[in-house]
Amino acid sequence: MEIYLDNSATTQICKAAADKIIYIVNNIYGNPSSLHNKGLDAQHEVEAARKTLAKALGTLDTEIYFTSGGTEANNTAVFGAAYAKKRQGNKIVTTGAEHSSVFEACKELEKQGFEVVYLQPDISGHISAEQIENAVDKNTILVSVMNVNNETGAIFPVDKIKKIIDRKKAPALFHCDAVQAFGKIPVKPYKIGADLLTVSSHKIHGPKGCGALFVRKGVYIKPLLYGGEQQRKIRPGTEAVPLIAGFGEAVSQISPYSQTLESMTALRDYTVKRLSQIGGIVINSPEDALPYIVNISVTGIKSETLLHFLEQREIYVSSGSACAKGKQSHVLTSMGLPKNITDSALRISFSKFSTTQDADALANAIEQASRSLIRNS
Amino acid sequence: MEIYLDNSATTQICKAAADKIIYIVNNIYGNPSSLHNKGLDAQHEVEAARKTLAKALGTLDTEIYFTSGGTEANNTAVFGAAYAKKRQGNKIVTTGAEHSSVFEACKELEKQGFEVVYLQPDISGHISAEQIENAVDKNTILVSVMNVNNETGAIFPVDKIKKIIDRKKAPALFHCDAVQAFGKIPVKPYKIGADLLTVSSHKIHGPKGCGALFVRKGVYIKPLLYGGEQQRKIRPGTEAVPLIAGFGEAVSQISPYSQTLESMTALRDYTVKRLSQIGGIVINSPEDALPYIVNISVTGIKSETLLHFLEQREIYVSSGSACAKGKQSHVLTSMGLPKNITDSALRISFSKFSTTQDADALANAIEQASRSLIRNS
Repeated sequence: MEIYLDNSATTQICKAAADKIIYIVNNIYGNPSSLHNKGLDAQHEVEAARKTLAKALGTLDTEIYFTSGGTEANNTAVFGAAYAKKRQGNKIVTTGAEHSSVFEACKELEKQGFEVVYLQPDISGHISAEQIENAVDKNTILVSVMNVNNETGAIFPVDKIKKIIDRKKAPALFHCDAVQAFGKIPVKPYKIGADLLTVSSHKIHGPKGCGALFVRKGVYIKPLLYGGEQQRKIRPGTEAVPLIAGFGEAVSQISPYSQTLESMTALRDYTVKRLSQIGGIVINSPEDALPYIVNISVTGIKSETLLHFLEQREIYVSSGSACAKGKQSHVLTSMGLPKNITDSALRISFSKFSTTQDADALANAIEQASRSLIRNS
Repeated sequence: MEIYLDNSATTQICKAAADKIIYIVNNIYGNPSSLHNKGLDAQHEVEAARKTLAKALGTLDTEIYFTSGGTEANNTAVFGAAYAKKRQGNKIVTTGAEHSSVFEACKELEKQGFEVVYLQPDISGHISAEQIENAVDKNTILVSVMNVNNETGAIFPVDKIKKIIDRKKAPALFHCDAVQAFGKIPVKPYKIGADLLTVSSHKIHGPKGCGALFVRKGVYIKPLLYGGEQQRKIRPGTEAVPLIAGFGEAVSQISPYSQTLESMTALRDYTVKRLSQIGGIVINSPEDALPYIVNISVTGIKSETLLHFLEQREIYVSSGSACAKGKQSHVLTSMGLPKNITDSALRISFSKFSTTQDADALANAIEQASRSLIRNS
């Protein structure tokens, strides 16, 4: 039996989302921008999904812009804010542990002359509010900090940022990449004072190729794409109706947080306990991390070797972010972890469908690997 | 019975594409970038689609980059080429009749200091090779000209552009927006010497939210999106597996051109003949246009009025580009057509599934409208 513990890379699509996509491809084919009924039918599907997402985030419908995924939403936020604000300052504050779609966008802005401060997490994976406080100044035009780190599950102090910006009298917009948090803990842009916030469909049992950017009413960002009149010209292009509608369904299936968080914490604790009984395992995730992610190092076994050992037993985990495709993790490196730890890191990531049986199978397989692979290496 | 004659806005998804999407959402959920089997299964689907598209275009697989649609592909091409070449010159040559995703991107580049020449079509909708020849010079870094115009069906002389660029010793890249041509006439970037070429899925009976950009091997463009390692970092982000796989199936269903072109020409000629029997109708499309599109003006009836009159009879056409959502057509305006013509313009656009019965129903309804609406206005 297949054991999928790579849910931070992507999740299995839920039945409601799959059924909606099937309904759309079989029945709804109009262009949402067309003025006739065929177009209206499609537009209704897009607007229903927008409403569902807005409700989940506690925002206005008109503050939600659908994109092709988290990468496009993060790029739209980072470039869009930097270019819109460039006359008010030159400094961007972010972390060294952001997803590559924020991190690489910031690297590009640096090449263009912006000053970017990358706050490094401590060895436990944490970023402190003090670090942010010390970095933000009157010249800061953008603070981009993720809610939950995608490799360690560390929760960053995003609820402190808006106050820091205000206190420092910075002209900064606050962007939060909430891709790994959304659907798992309450994500409310208004509550944390975010101006821009990114979510993704395929991390919450929706289809791949769809995400959304929240842009607070009254906030101007320079668009990344130019074209038709769609989505108030902030994100033109014919809407991906099947995916957007599927995303909407996935959002409507999000379980009550308190319940899932409790069971997920129990599962994570159980998994960590089982793994701790095997010698040579280091837990890289902080104790107060989001319980959906456990990053470990099985010292002495290279990540990729163990990944393939597990794969042969139909257990699927990852060595780091899927997007990095096997390259050294910039997140673990930013934490200052030594090379033998980063080289042997493994990310275990649960979904609400994961069970203690999955954890047992994983622990048993890692124990087996630990005996046979280390002995043979 | 529904009569859908708005196929240049979007098409009904074909069974093969719908079935493929259903298969994917039910069976394939891995992240194509994951190193394990679940990821590989998804990656195979993406690569199979890429191969199908490359074969249809006569290019290498590695020259195809999937995007979220024509808008993103056009933006990537126009901005990517302009920024990559900005040290070699400052001039961009395009037409006043391009799709808004090229047109508005060029307007933005103009704001940034690039010189953009918008060649205006003549009153028949044509752009001549001479116009392009006269505009391209040693300072020209990009020529972006569409293959088939989306509102009139006019075919632009894209096969002449590469030679003009060479003759003028311009450092220009040549981008061709082939969204309305692909699947209808042979589109071969190597044959016309295009460096960049855009195609879209939902115009050829594939799903909405997917397109592709051909980037010739050895040609560098600056990416629009930054992030992970996907698609050689030219277009990062987790691939929209269901849509890409569906697009691939739609491409594999493209009928032999000679056959469909012949039947489509007969259908267009029949439609024009039927319409010409009604008084007060002007044909705005040139005679040698792609027969899939007929742009007409029913003088004396506003586009939107007629569109809704037809809609009540379940006949679906458009007043212009769907992306403009009812705004004045910049294409017809660029042709120098008088206001009474542009105000009453209607785009009829066929697919390979359109019939002479559809044309009859349309002509009968327009005749009825012509009698009742003009009399009452």
